[in-house]
Amino acid sequence: MSDKCVLILSGGMDSGTLLFDLLEQGYDVLTLSFNYGQRHNKELSYAKALAEFVGVSHQVADLQSLTAEFFKGSSQTDASVEVPEGHYAEENMKLTVVPNRNMIMLSLAIAYAISNKASKVFYGAHAGDHAIYPDCRKVFVEAMQKAAQLCDWNPVDIEAPYLDMTKVEILHRGLDLKVPYGMTWTCYKGGEKPCGKCGSCQERAEAFAKNDTVDPGLEGAAHV
Amino acid sequence: MSDKCVLILSGGMDSGTLLFDLLEQGYDVLTLSFNYGQRHNKELSYAKALAEFVGVSHQVADLQSLTAEFFKGSSQTDASVEVPEGHYAEENMKLTVVPNRNMIMLSLAIAYAISNKASKVFYGAHAGDHAIYPDCRKVFVEAMQKAAQLCDWNPVDIEAPYLDMTKVEILHRGLDLKVPYGMTWTCYKGGEKPCGKCGSCQERAEAFAKNDTVDPGLEGAAHV
Repeated sequence: MSDKCVLILSGGMDSGTLLFDLLEQGYDVLTLSFNYGQRHNKELSYAKALAEFVGVSHQVADLQSLTAEFFKGSSQTDASVEVPEGHYAEENMKLTVVPNRNMIMLSLAIAYAISNKASKVFYGAHAGDHAIYPDCRKVFVEAMQKAAQLCDWNPVDIEAPYLDMTKVEILHRGLDLKVPYGMTWTCYKGGEKPCGKCGSCQERAEAFAKNDTVDPGLEGAAHV
Repeated sequence: MSDKCVLILSGGMDSGTLLFDLLEQGYDVLTLSFNYGQRHNKELSYAKALAEFVGVSHQVADLQSLTAEFFKGSSQTDASVEVPEGHYAEENMKLTVVPNRNMIMLSLAIAYAISNKASKVFYGAHAGDHAIYPDCRKVFVEAMQKAAQLCDWNPVDIEAPYLDMTKVEILHRGLDLKVPYGMTWTCYKGGEKPCGKCGSCQERAEAFAKNDTVDPGLEGAAHV
């Protein structure tokens, strides 16, 4: 069995932690990021720098030509929709949902895995996202895992090992793994520094506070 | 309930027939084609012409930037692999399988449906393909239908009404619907005229023969 895997690396905390986790487990990791025209496409330079930092390959799938027609109505891909402020728990955070984003990323990651003879695709979906993001739910991951077993003569496993963990727990693990969190980007607004107001920034701040640690990423752009 | 739907239109016989079928059923059809760097990308001009002929919108999702890294090893997307000749039933036809193609197309079609407030995605998978194409099997379509119900807060139905039909039966229906088959492209080689030797050409020829009809597409390029 191949120990080669594809990791969907967004440049954020969860997939960044998973990268270090998989390397510790001995996987040969191919990292894959997506440019779907996200407002916070700044995260892509963080993903690239993180992959270079640990010395693994990094591929960007460029879907920008699809943004206008395929990803309407989300604050993250549609300039006419503002990024909501406030806690993740709030209903208005649903504005940040990008139409069918994770299925698209997983389907391309599976093709990338097959093309490169990897047998697993990892992604960093986690419990904290469930209320807002339908495609981070366990039922969705299970349905995709079923489809991934049938989609090609080379079955690929989809693994989301942080599915039942909270952001606080993921950060706890990452601190043990010495993940350089100053090299990860979380803010949905994608400005020079994290805004501190969007749901994504708030959740990150909470996770650091509950781990009694200072976030090294507060000033932004640690690597550039 | 919206009667707006998205149809994945390849430019071939099956999705071409389905287009006429859906219009007869009264659907408001948005057609969607994919340029994934297929050798027979000629089919795209057929899809466009067919959509124009019946007066519906036509969108092309351009995935060419992904071809080299994501779609390796298939005769249809990898210039180093030759298109096999012979009947579909033959094992070597598996060389024509493009890694995870249908999941990728369906996932983007779902995003396109959500973005355009359509509630269904149709595609022309059919029984004749099953032995060769894993992503035309009923079990795969069922798994994707499950995932499509969970992937977004706007559930989308995946419909493959020709799943249990043979090519002969689909053509029979299309002839009733007066589909202009000279405006569809089938050959995997994508030359000036159909090669007549690839599995795809052979299956088409059989279907016309069994319907006691002459194929108006034998000379190619009816619309250009």
